[in-house]
Amino acid sequence: MTLLQTLRGEPASRVPIWIMRQAGRYLPEYRAIKEKSSFEAMTRDPAVAAEITLQPLRRFALDAAIIFSDIMTPLEALGIDVVFKPGPTIAEPIRSRKQIDALQLRGPIAPFVGDALRLVRLELDRSVALIGFGGAPLTLAAYLIEGGGSKEYEHFRQFLRAEPQAMHALLEKLTDLSIAYLRMQVESGAQVIQLFDSWAGLHDAATYREFAVPYHARIMSALGELGVARIYFALGASHLLDEIAQIPSEAVGIDWRTTFAAARKALPDRAIQGNLDPALLFADPDTIRREARNVLERARGGPHVFNLGHGIWQQTPIEAVSRLVETVREYRL
Amino acid sequence: MTLLQTLRGEPASRVPIWIMRQAGRYLPEYRAIKEKSSFEAMTRDPAVAAEITLQPLRRFALDAAIIFSDIMTPLEALGIDVVFKPGPTIAEPIRSRKQIDALQLRGPIAPFVGDALRLVRLELDRSVALIGFGGAPLTLAAYLIEGGGSKEYEHFRQFLRAEPQAMHALLEKLTDLSIAYLRMQVESGAQVIQLFDSWAGLHDAATYREFAVPYHARIMSALGELGVARIYFALGASHLLDEIAQIPSEAVGIDWRTTFAAARKALPDRAIQGNLDPALLFADPDTIRREARNVLERARGGPHVFNLGHGIWQQTPIEAVSRLVETVREYRL
Repeated sequence: MTLLQTLRGEPASRVPIWIMRQAGRYLPEYRAIKEKSSFEAMTRDPAVAAEITLQPLRRFALDAAIIFSDIMTPLEALGIDVVFKPGPTIAEPIRSRKQIDALQLRGPIAPFVGDALRLVRLELDRSVALIGFGGAPLTLAAYLIEGGGSKEYEHFRQFLRAEPQAMHALLEKLTDLSIAYLRMQVESGAQVIQLFDSWAGLHDAATYREFAVPYHARIMSALGELGVARIYFALGASHLLDEIAQIPSEAVGIDWRTTFAAARKALPDRAIQGNLDPALLFADPDTIRREARNVLERARGGPHVFNLGHGIWQQTPIEAVSRLVETVREYRL
Repeated sequence: MTLLQTLRGEPASRVPIWIMRQAGRYLPEYRAIKEKSSFEAMTRDPAVAAEITLQPLRRFALDAAIIFSDIMTPLEALGIDVVFKPGPTIAEPIRSRKQIDALQLRGPIAPFVGDALRLVRLELDRSVALIGFGGAPLTLAAYLIEGGGSKEYEHFRQFLRAEPQAMHALLEKLTDLSIAYLRMQVESGAQVIQLFDSWAGLHDAATYREFAVPYHARIMSALGELGVARIYFALGASHLLDEIAQIPSEAVGIDWRTTFAAARKALPDRAIQGNLDPALLFADPDTIRREARNVLERARGGPHVFNLGHGIWQQTPIEAVSRLVETVREYRL
């Protein structure tokens, strides 16, 4: 299994590839299901979630399946009402210590995700790894406090400065939730866990050391005890590599702005995942091949998992994805 | 004039301070004008724009006034219809080479901005510098192609990859426009020009070298011939410092994520401006003072212009701004 070999630092003859958001809106067969259903309903029905997870594997020679779900999915278990329209929106954004103190586990954490993982594993080729995932507490907190997507996350960043102790209390609860949720995914068959810190890029290094590192490291350490391979992905984090080095993982995902040179230097003991700009899949065929090979060349010198620098975009042409996967598959180490 | 001394690298006994978006929505006297007018009307009326520009100077001991305007203001002269609701929105986003070829100068470029600058200079204390500004072509192009604000700027980044030659043609026209517009501001009394590349952070270094550096350097070189002091501000650009070093300027503005250590190393010949996180103005008084002093200490070792790392937020308490300005004013070099 090429992905697991690479994540474990074992010799491999080629570079494994999977694509963030590979089970999603750029696929016509996904849109066909989406037409008749809501995003929430699709994530909550294990048979549908498993089918969507498997869709990209039928088209492309990918080395992993990543379970179809959302980073907000486990929050319902804390009594939080999340609606997708289409971005995640919080009915009552968290803006007080009182709301944070009231958060408590009200039942099992998204058990349908475990069911979907088991269904996928049954159908998945042995050579393909199964990836589970979760949102990092600091990113979950960003959505919970802001109430939804935002350019500057002013409410969130204001709350962090005005009420740092309340922020720590929230992150503590989200960390406990994440450990239980990700452990359940491993017990349901996930062989790799990716932790998404999608809004890491909002923070300076000192803030990241105080509000991200201790919590995200606690999650990764707990997962390490289970023997699962761990990928830490942080967007817009080229200035946070020394902090990410303090968070245990087998691999670190970098976006299109962080260079392999900088990542290899700060993270000499990790596999590096990434980092083709998703926008490059709109270039002409020759450019796509050339840029993919550039990524492969720049990544040499340590274990590399090919991926985009961020999730694939909805309008991406299918042929561009085929071309990319072929280029990476053909490349020999 | 402390700001100009510092920008020119002359010895100064204290650190000059101004605040991005200091003439704006956090001031009750600004909101009183805004209640009875639209943003466009306010920017287009020289007496009103001058009044708003002067408002923060009456409250705080700032070292500069920055003209009240918007980076989108000059685009009307190219026949582009910009509406603020409240963010800039383009009625017909640019998505084709044909639209780019049709762009041409249709009259004087925002002459009301020149009128406002002259009015401000008449009332401004001699010790206070007057700053004009413009948007960098790559950021203007982001808005023009996307059609408005966006999280990922997918249309813009897609167009850049799919039609690189058309993108260069657009940047060429925006560069010509910017030079004429900023030259007019200097002729109207601006002693400092800040070029805002607010969306620099979208791009990797290679893309920035191709699509930003040649155009932004051409603008800064043209301004250099006029003898005006130049500040280059790029948001989210901690990974682009080597590219920014190729763009002539007296000073570079850094956001709260780029460190002074990294900026001093990459830009040893520039004054560095920044970089307090705007969110820190919501912390308690002791934290604000401590963090402001931390910025002042970290900035030592070269010329420093105190500023926030990005524009001040609407909800910022007035007292926090007073505290900040006092702290910087008291600090001795």
